[in-house]
Amino acid sequence: MYIERIQTPADLKGLSIKELNIVADETRAAVLNRVSKHGGHVGPNLGFVEATVALHYVFNAPEDKFVFDVSHQCYPHKVLTGRASGFLGNVDDMNAISGYSSPAESPVYDNFEVGHTSTSVSLATGLQKARDIKGGKENIIAIIGDGSLSGGEAFEGLDEASELGTGIIIVVNDNEMSIAENHGGIYKNLKALRESNGQCELNWFKAWGFEYKYLEEGNNVEKLIETFQSVKDTDKPTIVHIHTEKGHGFAPAVADKEPWHWGAPFNMEDGSRPEAPVMESYEELYSNWMLNEMKKDPTLIAITAGTPTAAGFTAAKRKEAGKQHIDMGIAEEQAVAMASGMAKGGLRPVWTVYSTFIQRTYDQIAQDLCINSNPAVINVAWGGMNTMNDITHICLFDIPMLCSIPGLIYLAPTNCEEYFAMLRWAILQDKKPIAIRIPSNGVIHTTDDVDSTYTYEPKYKIAHKGSEVAIIAAGSFYQKGENVAKLLSNNGIDATLINPRYLHAVDAEALEELKANHKLVVTLEDGCKDGGFGERIASYYSTSDMKVLVGGVKKDLYDRFDVQKLLADNRLSDDQIVEDVLQIVR
Amino acid sequence: MYIERIQTPADLKGLSIKELNIVADETRAAVLNRVSKHGGHVGPNLGFVEATVALHYVFNAPEDKFVFDVSHQCYPHKVLTGRASGFLGNVDDMNAISGYSSPAESPVYDNFEVGHTSTSVSLATGLQKARDIKGGKENIIAIIGDGSLSGGEAFEGLDEASELGTGIIIVVNDNEMSIAENHGGIYKNLKALRESNGQCELNWFKAWGFEYKYLEEGNNVEKLIETFQSVKDTDKPTIVHIHTEKGHGFAPAVADKEPWHWGAPFNMEDGSRPEAPVMESYEELYSNWMLNEMKKDPTLIAITAGTPTAAGFTAAKRKEAGKQHIDMGIAEEQAVAMASGMAKGGLRPVWTVYSTFIQRTYDQIAQDLCINSNPAVINVAWGGMNTMNDITHICLFDIPMLCSIPGLIYLAPTNCEEYFAMLRWAILQDKKPIAIRIPSNGVIHTTDDVDSTYTYEPKYKIAHKGSEVAIIAAGSFYQKGENVAKLLSNNGIDATLINPRYLHAVDAEALEELKANHKLVVTLEDGCKDGGFGERIASYYSTSDMKVLVGGVKKDLYDRFDVQKLLADNRLSDDQIVEDVLQIVR
Repeated sequence: MYIERIQTPADLKGLSIKELNIVADETRAAVLNRVSKHGGHVGPNLGFVEATVALHYVFNAPEDKFVFDVSHQCYPHKVLTGRASGFLGNVDDMNAISGYSSPAESPVYDNFEVGHTSTSVSLATGLQKARDIKGGKENIIAIIGDGSLSGGEAFEGLDEASELGTGIIIVVNDNEMSIAENHGGIYKNLKALRESNGQCELNWFKAWGFEYKYLEEGNNVEKLIETFQSVKDTDKPTIVHIHTEKGHGFAPAVADKEPWHWGAPFNMEDGSRPEAPVMESYEELYSNWMLNEMKKDPTLIAITAGTPTAAGFTAAKRKEAGKQHIDMGIAEEQAVAMASGMAKGGLRPVWTVYSTFIQRTYDQIAQDLCINSNPAVINVAWGGMNTMNDITHICLFDIPMLCSIPGLIYLAPTNCEEYFAMLRWAILQDKKPIAIRIPSNGVIHTTDDVDSTYTYEPKYKIAHKGSEVAIIAAGSFYQKGENVAKLLSNNGIDATLINPRYLHAVDAEALEELKANHKLVVTLEDGCKDGGFGERIASYYSTSDMKVLVGGVKKDLYDRFDVQKLLADNRLSDDQIVEDVLQIVR
Repeated sequence: MYIERIQTPADLKGLSIKELNIVADETRAAVLNRVSKHGGHVGPNLGFVEATVALHYVFNAPEDKFVFDVSHQCYPHKVLTGRASGFLGNVDDMNAISGYSSPAESPVYDNFEVGHTSTSVSLATGLQKARDIKGGKENIIAIIGDGSLSGGEAFEGLDEASELGTGIIIVVNDNEMSIAENHGGIYKNLKALRESNGQCELNWFKAWGFEYKYLEEGNNVEKLIETFQSVKDTDKPTIVHIHTEKGHGFAPAVADKEPWHWGAPFNMEDGSRPEAPVMESYEELYSNWMLNEMKKDPTLIAITAGTPTAAGFTAAKRKEAGKQHIDMGIAEEQAVAMASGMAKGGLRPVWTVYSTFIQRTYDQIAQDLCINSNPAVINVAWGGMNTMNDITHICLFDIPMLCSIPGLIYLAPTNCEEYFAMLRWAILQDKKPIAIRIPSNGVIHTTDDVDSTYTYEPKYKIAHKGSEVAIIAAGSFYQKGENVAKLLSNNGIDATLINPRYLHAVDAEALEELKANHKLVVTLEDGCKDGGFGERIASYYSTSDMKVLVGGVKKDLYDRFDVQKLLADNRLSDDQIVEDVLQIVR
């Protein structure tokens, strides 16, 4: 195999076009080997194999610098920069190589840790400026997909790249898809450019001051090499718009692009996946519930921002929802501001977003939404430690962030029935923006009564009245609270158990009452404790005799953590909590 | 006067062009009357007088809905929608009317509270969608300045407005200026459009799918009316690009646009302002210090994002800095990501931003900067209660936000010498992103020794070792800590006084030592206490016997607050703190 001999991109330089095509085929096979056994991003990586071979043939990394947007297309780059073992070997070898661009893994060839979208051009302008100040000559190349172009940061980056006026090459990898289909006016222009072979008069990039090259054959190594050679060492801001095929070279991924954007392991023969155990999911429950409610209420609108699967809105369900579903493309700022406008205009918008991406829109939540007190609903999905664990996708920080924004109510349901009761109330009320943290510890049902009405001022629910120790266990950590209560009971402590339900402020009345016959309050939250829920309770009691054991994860940069180890390191296993409680109260 | 008789925009309908011109003149005089006596946004409001008269003549508010971007141009609208008293009367009358679009003030005519930039189109798309779903026919009109177009949210909004495909009118009020000069590739296209009377082939807006109209005479009521009438009731996404003159009708504001964007009261005769008392400012000290350092270090780069005055970088100083100053336009996301790229590339970037605007770039700080651990410096200006106080410009939330982002060091100098020592250290170190909260309680000097080296792990500075009570007073509240210590000493308590210097984490060693002979720790921070600095200390001690009095402002939506009242309401006056301390320890 060629690729086993390619330790650095320099090893490509002497190869013929024929040999480079073999390298491309082998690289594609390596990518498929990894994703079929390990899972990962399939379609975007397959579509960018030829371009990666051509880029590394034409340019000279690491002197020339690549910045991969969102890094959904960086696997071929990894294969060609000394990390083929993560693609050819067994699953353990694959685990050693992350799914994202990572200087921690390859300080020489990867310039940035990247996992959120629309950042590449902005990051690259920094390298561009550094080169210009230091008098360097290297090429700076940002690689951005058409889907990633819809995020505000990408536009800001393009605007500045043109302003700088010096050499930067922005490869627009246009596969006519975001994670799902694209949404936005810019795609009208990309389409016109594709259909005119880059020749149509209206050209957004040229209007913004870029040199512009178009290549229709974006999966043709030879043509790609010609194109990249023609812009190499340019001293002008330059767009290279290449038309690629998402999933190229693997028929199932070409045939059905959305589910093949990212996926679990599969059978290479036919793309089939092992039958997944039939399990309830909030994605499916939510989308079904919404579709049903939408039929009764034409003002109910489901919003997503580039990740419709976060809300279970598959292509079929989006179609069924019609005008009552709207996907913004990867544009979370727009999602929030538009939701605020919709609520102001009398609609009932519900935006569903993964915890890790909500931080892309702090200011819009604070300004466009909360200062205006418009009654939009935000569903925060996958908040907690049992979801994503790459350093760029950690879902532990939504509680500190959202709870520091005045005017926002943040609810934490502890089971399925409570979630839908809260969702219904949030949608029907008309006074405040409400965020709801969907439980992330599986779909747990209750037969207990669940309140149908909630309030803007927190009101804790006392599940069990005991004494000495009170456990306030929020959201997906409620069941941990139940476990700890049981274990304490084995130790002779009849602990009070509380479902706080509200994260954004404390229920002072409930906390005050606990003073009568408790000496320790334990708080449990499935997230970062610094600035979070429990610290506010610690602060509430800080001038009293009540002791508070704050349970949550320490603020830190985590990467591909093991959940059990994370729990143990933060003294969050059930046994550790019991041990710490006993040490304090005994 | 006409405008005294105009209670609603309907009162304009019967007027002739001649009369409308008189209304425009009177409106301009009213705006000038307000800004000369009360201060406020001058240039952008003066330039938009004629357009406002024409908009209200052509469209039918409140059925037709206006959304003013950033609201720097909404004064004429206020004059014509029943709020002329805020412009004609005395300063007390003026205080009753805010400087921003505000439904709290006018629920009928103002659709959103707006003060941050680039939000109008996104908000308007929400109203557009609501109209479409509900089958309405009203016009939705977003009004956005050329300067505001550089923010990511504006691009996301335009992208979606085109996608929706139904009627929305976006008035691009092009006065060839942001707050300072514009920066970005988009301005090349606006210039080409102006110079070709809107006819040039390359047209960004058309490329994105908009209908497009250009009007050169953007301060001509008659032409504006014709233009707006031509797009009224459109069923297509439509850009109306009008060329206006910033400061129109007031010679000093036309002659020198940047200082006349916003300003304090002035003499109407000649635009002169009362001689300001000569006071040191961090803006001036910082910019001078940087210019001096830049001469020695060509890799030192000062960054601003549309508000160069936050850093004292006047036009003259920007010129002096040359390529070592870069303004992004109003594009905070780009500022952070590019700073990260610059630091990666070996430069030493320092971005200065007002506290209220740092929340526009949470994700870039977390992802582009901190996960990558690139050593860029962020100067947070005006953090605290003594700065801006409009609901959209509150500067109390930067501590909770920045302290919840892992990997970021946040320093809080307590005086001028300490600030520059920290700044120098932050610039010279090469391992971590560092934010510094510039003191906001005036420039206070010290003759005490100030450390020249800092660390990534917090190390508190014990200013005075006492017992029983320890005061940990951060940043601009350090002097309050000194005052409280003095008052406690009058009450027989020799309090320990600590300058914590670091906000992002606690100094566990210092806190542990206090346990020996203290029973109360008082924390003081000039900001929101929910999720802030003091709560982390309360949490640290929460399982011990140490009591903690957390001093800060309660999380809430504040608007045009009085500082003394805010202090008193939060028990933050020196006397109240002493009273509370005595109640706990006596």
